[in-house]
Amino acid sequence: MYEFVYCTPTKVVFGENAESKLGGLLKEYGAKKVLLHYGGGSALKGGLLTRVRWLLEEDGIAFVELGGVKPNPRLSLVEEGVALCKSEGVDFIVAIGGGSVIDSAKAIGMAIGTGCAPWDLYSGGAKPSATLPVGVILTLSASGSEMSNSSVITNDYTQVKKGCTAEVSRPVFAILNPALTFTVPPYATACGCADIAMHTMERYLSGGNSLRVTDAIGEEIVRTVTACAKQLVKNPQDYEARANVMWAGSLSHNGLTGCGGDGGDWATHTLGHELSALYDVAHGAALTALWGAWARYVYRNVLGRFYTFAVQAMGVRPNGSKEEIALKGIEAVEDWFRAIGLPTSIGGLGITLTDEQVRDMAHRCAEHCGGVKGSCVALKEEDMYEIYKAAL
Amino acid sequence: MYEFVYCTPTKVVFGENAESKLGGLLKEYGAKKVLLHYGGGSALKGGLLTRVRWLLEEDGIAFVELGGVKPNPRLSLVEEGVALCKSEGVDFIVAIGGGSVIDSAKAIGMAIGTGCAPWDLYSGGAKPSATLPVGVILTLSASGSEMSNSSVITNDYTQVKKGCTAEVSRPVFAILNPALTFTVPPYATACGCADIAMHTMERYLSGGNSLRVTDAIGEEIVRTVTACAKQLVKNPQDYEARANVMWAGSLSHNGLTGCGGDGGDWATHTLGHELSALYDVAHGAALTALWGAWARYVYRNVLGRFYTFAVQAMGVRPNGSKEEIALKGIEAVEDWFRAIGLPTSIGGLGITLTDEQVRDMAHRCAEHCGGVKGSCVALKEEDMYEIYKAAL
Repeated sequence: MYEFVYCTPTKVVFGENAESKLGGLLKEYGAKKVLLHYGGGSALKGGLLTRVRWLLEEDGIAFVELGGVKPNPRLSLVEEGVALCKSEGVDFIVAIGGGSVIDSAKAIGMAIGTGCAPWDLYSGGAKPSATLPVGVILTLSASGSEMSNSSVITNDYTQVKKGCTAEVSRPVFAILNPALTFTVPPYATACGCADIAMHTMERYLSGGNSLRVTDAIGEEIVRTVTACAKQLVKNPQDYEARANVMWAGSLSHNGLTGCGGDGGDWATHTLGHELSALYDVAHGAALTALWGAWARYVYRNVLGRFYTFAVQAMGVRPNGSKEEIALKGIEAVEDWFRAIGLPTSIGGLGITLTDEQVRDMAHRCAEHCGGVKGSCVALKEEDMYEIYKAAL
Repeated sequence: MYEFVYCTPTKVVFGENAESKLGGLLKEYGAKKVLLHYGGGSALKGGLLTRVRWLLEEDGIAFVELGGVKPNPRLSLVEEGVALCKSEGVDFIVAIGGGSVIDSAKAIGMAIGTGCAPWDLYSGGAKPSATLPVGVILTLSASGSEMSNSSVITNDYTQVKKGCTAEVSRPVFAILNPALTFTVPPYATACGCADIAMHTMERYLSGGNSLRVTDAIGEEIVRTVTACAKQLVKNPQDYEARANVMWAGSLSHNGLTGCGGDGGDWATHTLGHELSALYDVAHGAALTALWGAWARYVYRNVLGRFYTFAVQAMGVRPNGSKEEIALKGIEAVEDWFRAIGLPTSIGGLGITLTDEQVRDMAHRCAEHCGGVKGSCVALKEEDMYEIYKAAL
């Protein structure tokens, strides 16, 4: 096991109708003027946004609004949010949505908190050392951004997608009402479940052993989303299944699944970010399209971890050699992706790439991650090219 | 599942030599004058206290000291600590030890923070709404107090033991170095492992279902301490085993094992506190002496939970009726207690009680908990008497 720091102060308020506590939470954290930040669909469905406006008006909390966040949230909207917050004297941001909205809110918050240009915080040009506080009303279980220290923004001027890791960016509170995800469409539900599994697998399928409880949490998160994703295809309003996925999503990316581990591999995310940025693919689908190719490229290097994962998380019977079991585990993950309607290749995303485009994507990917990525295998540009090619 | 609030902001710094980061942490939290609070043995062993003094001197952080905390920490020493902190202008408390030292530090911190008499915070006479910040260097894996919102103090004037639950009492940081527990004697190691299992079981063996990940965390914590306690009897310096027990201990009582549950049963703790207060029994041993009698008294009411616990946490094969499996699970827990040298009866503690003493203990227990305790069965004084009697 490895040494670690774990610090996840986000206050979670979990349960049906939890959003009714918004006013009290905002007062607890001293909010005077709030930015309500959202995308479109999820905040408007079932009248959530209208209810939130009423709640704030009842509690006498002033607010302004900025909607329009899109998947793979754009730098240009972040800049608009920063300008709005400055001109309106906003001191607290409430993100109503999923990972894209939360990440957009985090970017706005850090830009205001530090006084830096937002892209500088993502490109490494400025240190994300302060932020406006961000609270969340979650409407999509997927990114885990509601408790995480990270966010990802796409620079829509250059088509570069970059992440920022900063402890200050953990939301101060997260309102988790599973019923708010009842209306999430099947494909988005599936993408979310895959994303949750991937956050866990990035940490689990990595070099070295971890702590027992850490592994058990990771295994159960994967078992939970694989089982519940199938249940939710049949009954999208299954409260227990939505609740289990929601809590699994928050725990998958809040640090807990990494305690004692080596920090994780994260190559699939890096490869996926490039694919998303260039071809505007949903984050979860980009990951499932590439994961199998990555897994088969690296598993021999960390065979023990792939073996244990296959048996404990994917329920593969331990009959056969370690390598056979590990490969069956990889197949089981891909079978699950397919069962919930997700692609297991770039072709499955409806994208056909020339060899030149693949070379270019690998080149950009290596460039944006500083040349090397991954702990199972430290991937260089040539490895990235091979994995993209195997995933075509 | 039930709605819940989860908020555990304690910053954990985990790993070999983690205590070397003390100075940096104290500066991060703005400490100017520190109280080093400790018991005796564990802080002095291996020169830990001497090293801590050097670290603070090197970093130019002023400090005073108060040692002498005993198991079942005493109110009188808390009062002494309050007087010392006031006269010395202490603004931060560092607890070096296990649960007793941490709880004593919490009591001192809250008394200073609120300006109230410390016992009023435990008897319900005053609200624990503020505290001096408390940091921890853990030397015993057991209570989970290093991340928890609770503490227990014994009023040594009246022999009443009472707990206080307050969010403000969560330590701001916890330094967890498994190597600092190498010298914990076998009996204390066993008591600690039992305490960790009990914190988990109090929440798991309770009314109603919880969330999947919550159950899985509880099950693995119990599997971890049952396996590692046996390993540590053979090799007390097994770093991996100490690390696994240490992290299991912190997670067992930081709120995570209760997310989505009904709040837990806690009757065994309530019954055990009375036994500890009257006869000065180690906390863990008091719990194991009573647990079997409690479990057999209540299990039929929550048979499903006892059944699942038996299979998932204790490895009982699911052959037989649910009731048979549940009872085998109870036996397996008691077998484990015995295997690591812990009592499974009050007689096993070397204590012989008259019927009058049992009646008196049940009466005091009911009185101190407000008449009723437990969610599996809401125990009244007569039930408490029956359980104590069955545990003789």
